Amino acid sequence: MASLHGNNFIAGSLRGPSADAGQGSGRLYVATSPLDGMKLPGQFWFASLEDVGDAMQAAAGAAQPFALTSGDQRARLLEAIAEEILGLDDVLLERAAIETALPAARLTGERGRTVGQLRLFAAVARDCSWLDVRIDRSQPDRQPLPRSDLRRMKVPIGPVVVFGSSNFPLAFSVAGGDTASALCTGNPVVVKAHRGHPGTSELVAGAIQRAVAGCGLPAGIFSMLHGEGSVIGTALVTHPATRAVGFTGSRAAGRALVDAAGGRPDPIPVFAEMSSLNPVFILPGALADRTREIAEGFKASLTLGVGQFCTKPGLLFAVEGPDLVRFRAALRECVAAAPIGSMLHADILAAFDRGRTALLNVPGTTVLARSTAIAEAVKTHAAPLVVETDAATFLAHGQLAEEVFGPCSLLVATPTEAGLRTLARGLDGQLTATIHGTPQDLAAAGDLIQILSQTAGRVIVNGFPTGVEVCHAMQHGGPWPATSDSRFTSVGSAAVERFVRPICYQDVPEALLPEPLKDANPLGLGRLVDGVRA
Amino acid sequence: MASLHGNNFIAGSLRGPSADAGQGSGRLYVATSPLDGMKLPGQFWFASLEDVGDAMQAAAGAAQPFALTSGDQRARLLEAIAEEILGLDDVLLERAAIETALPAARLTGERGRTVGQLRLFAAVARDCSWLDVRIDRSQPDRQPLPRSDLRRMKVPIGPVVVFGSSNFPLAFSVAGGDTASALCTGNPVVVKAHRGHPGTSELVAGAIQRAVAGCGLPAGIFSMLHGEGSVIGTALVTHPATRAVGFTGSRAAGRALVDAAGGRPDPIPVFAEMSSLNPVFILPGALADRTREIAEGFKASLTLGVGQFCTKPGLLFAVEGPDLVRFRAALRECVAAAPIGSMLHADILAAFDRGRTALLNVPGTTVLARSTAIAEAVKTHAAPLVVETDAATFLAHGQLAEEVFGPCSLLVATPTEAGLRTLARGLDGQLTATIHGTPQDLAAAGDLIQILSQTAGRVIVNGFPTGVEVCHAMQHGGPWPATSDSRFTSVGSAAVERFVRPICYQDVPEALLPEPLKDANPLGLGRLVDGVRA
Repeated sequence: MASLHGNNFIAGSLRGPSADAGQGSGRLYVATSPLDGMKLPGQFWFASLEDVGDAMQAAAGAAQPFALTSGDQRARLLEAIAEEILGLDDVLLERAAIETALPAARLTGERGRTVGQLRLFAAVARDCSWLDVRIDRSQPDRQPLPRSDLRRMKVPIGPVVVFGSSNFPLAFSVAGGDTASALCTGNPVVVKAHRGHPGTSELVAGAIQRAVAGCGLPAGIFSMLHGEGSVIGTALVTHPATRAVGFTGSRAAGRALVDAAGGRPDPIPVFAEMSSLNPVFILPGALADRTREIAEGFKASLTLGVGQFCTKPGLLFAVEGPDLVRFRAALRECVAAAPIGSMLHADILAAFDRGRTALLNVPGTTVLARSTAIAEAVKTHAAPLVVETDAATFLAHGQLAEEVFGPCSLLVATPTEAGLRTLARGLDGQLTATIHGTPQDLAAAGDLIQILSQTAGRVIVNGFPTGVEVCHAMQHGGPWPATSDSRFTSVGSAAVERFVRPICYQDVPEALLPEPLKDANPLGLGRLVDGVRA
Repeated sequence: MASLHGNNFIAGSLRGPSADAGQGSGRLYVATSPLDGMKLPGQFWFASLEDVGDAMQAAAGAAQPFALTSGDQRARLLEAIAEEILGLDDVLLERAAIETALPAARLTGERGRTVGQLRLFAAVARDCSWLDVRIDRSQPDRQPLPRSDLRRMKVPIGPVVVFGSSNFPLAFSVAGGDTASALCTGNPVVVKAHRGHPGTSELVAGAIQRAVAGCGLPAGIFSMLHGEGSVIGTALVTHPATRAVGFTGSRAAGRALVDAAGGRPDPIPVFAEMSSLNPVFILPGALADRTREIAEGFKASLTLGVGQFCTKPGLLFAVEGPDLVRFRAALRECVAAAPIGSMLHADILAAFDRGRTALLNVPGTTVLARSTAIAEAVKTHAAPLVVETDAATFLAHGQLAEEVFGPCSLLVATPTEAGLRTLARGLDGQLTATIHGTPQDLAAAGDLIQILSQTAGRVIVNGFPTGVEVCHAMQHGGPWPATSDSRFTSVGSAAVERFVRPICYQDVPEALLPEPLKDANPLGLGRLVDGVRA
């Protein structure tokens, strides 16, 4: 069992309650297990506004020395964090399990993903290609005017505020993808811990703090605070030293952060990943040929992690007819047998219940399929279910296209295949969109892929959207409200692009140039020199 | 002399007043020459909100077909626009001259830059490296889970609204850098013409319209509307079809657009280039050795284009002492002899007068140098001047660090060289920052370069900030308020990054993949395959 101190982490030191007791700070917070509703060991101090100021000031002070570290130094930091996390061993997994109700196998897998992600970003830090070096050499004899020597590279944007997310207590929380991509590129990070897993957050923050100290890096590059999003979160986003924000969570919370950042005297970029229905289109041939297989796969994707994935398929579109009748029966059977699970938090279950009820309150919706298992409120159980409606009802009621976080999806039946295109065109921005089709279906579906390419960040054929690979080619982002800026991704090596900005040096003497820009190219980088890749 | 019709350009057709006469639409607008205050030939119809809707709807309709064009097709469009602009010959230059008061040589040079820029973006369109193709091939046997085939490329973001800027009536207006970089990457463009040069705008819009038709591209990819920024500009930014905005202008107008875009139900990115003081630091050795040369260079940069450049040096920092006394005398002499020029517009002159007065109203400021030429109001003349203050006064009065658009700059004298660092640390975001130093000065100035690298997008040694090269390595952008998002540039080939977003295709059959992603690599692109540049 973990022994937890409950303090905030501020630039290498631990801090309990502070003198400033305003706005909920100095309050002790205790987590409740979604497994049984019981209070968990450990009491956590909500940070004060003074703590926010101290953490951000330390981050600002550490920004320049951290920016000057080498890629190798930052790689070693990320690898050390990975090692420290592995070193927490079962203590971490056990605490995460009782705080989040996620099963041991899932948490072990997620730890692997988190560690793998840290190591991928270590490779990105060493590789340095994110610097995107461009050199246009001087042309002193050019007519009518000489050209100066111009050298451009990317540099860290400055302190990044990261909001831990509830649904990935390891991979998108304290040492998750946002933190790893910010540290990879030399940005100090201040994390707002998620209230759902404060103990897990403390353990991982300790791991990071030890790694920072062990690597001899400035303590100010990492802090972590407990507190309410509406108080501590807003204070972090509006602090003058904050240069960018990474967030994964609800649409309402994401919008509030985007608005807070936009209302600053100096607006800053927020990368918020918020809300996605991840529509799945079943084309007629596939519906006929793979009825049972698609129903099984859909059920598995829908219920994975009790439906608490950003990429959970929340919409299913198919054409009315005898094959859809068969598919309904198959889905009903699959979902009936689906196991029930505990959600991450009682508040999340309450939101799930509200969302599900709102769907069913729309005239023209019915329950198509539901798990027969008995849901126990004390265990924060959510029963998987699929609601059904027709295309006309769907198009007439915008609330049917709002995300219900949890194991709930909506099947929309349309009379014709053309109707699938109409439905696709009407969709809001999505993280993913999926098509199931036979080769014949797909040969005629080029236009549908085009439509979905405009709406989604990732288009999947004959698969399911859950399972987001951490690699170079991943795009985890899409038009609003999927994310706040479709030009970026929060998963994969390109995630670093959110937290860097270019700088150009004009006629700066070789000795004063950063290493990546020197004529001698001491780092051996691939560079664009006079427009040619060299 | 140009014959001008005064209509709005909507997707290939010309439109005069519309039935919807609300909010200033249907009004006829006449331009006034800053050279003599006289009304110019030509009457221009302000667009209606219906016109906005029609232009944006046409842009939305053209977005998908335009996105599917090849790089070569878009390159030919950009080259055709360049040819059409050159074909306007003296008609364009003469109209621009009487509308903007910019001298013929400058306008000829700016036309060259505009055409060069269009051709650079044509090369970028053909080269396709902006697609940033990344392929992670499937690993069906991977344990514990197989990896899907994942292929990522950039695609156009959708219709872009471009605001013509006053100070570059060709290079940053209707067919300027924003339009060229948006078209290069396959985004329809709707331009809000600047009120300062409606005739120039009409001529260039006609050139674009002919090029679009000549290339057989959808007419909806280009529209241009006349009107007030507060009415037509806001309507364009808040239209549901608009996906991004490019703007160059004042801080107040930029902020209004950022806020309007941020207040949408679906916030969209705005790239606004707004306000920069472009500080110049003279280190002691250079002040002693190159007193006269730096004074001459500074005067030339300050007065270039009547001080109407985004990169005009508006702040000059130096250390008090005998060399500064000599520098003051040299600067006084240079500026006294500086010619007087007409500003772009009477409103701009009025703003210049207000800004200059505000500077001099701060206790502790004095006029150091001014042109002895006589300014004539009817000719919209602005007399170059340099104001002086000390570091303590500068640090105590934030308004001294606000941009005065026009030929005015502020010399700030500090008692010690350390004071230069203090002043550098206190600066807001800048497009550029410049250091003058001898080799000995510079050897000890590494920390100053570091400080300025955090504040500015471009750091210049022993040069002056005006003169922004259009090339691969340029960065024209910086932290707020220089621009709304320091992660992007509005000049140079990287400007295209503002208007593209990534999309990932998962397990999409070869036949349905876009050309750049096919296994056969028919376009012969450089691609990142399984993490290796191939």
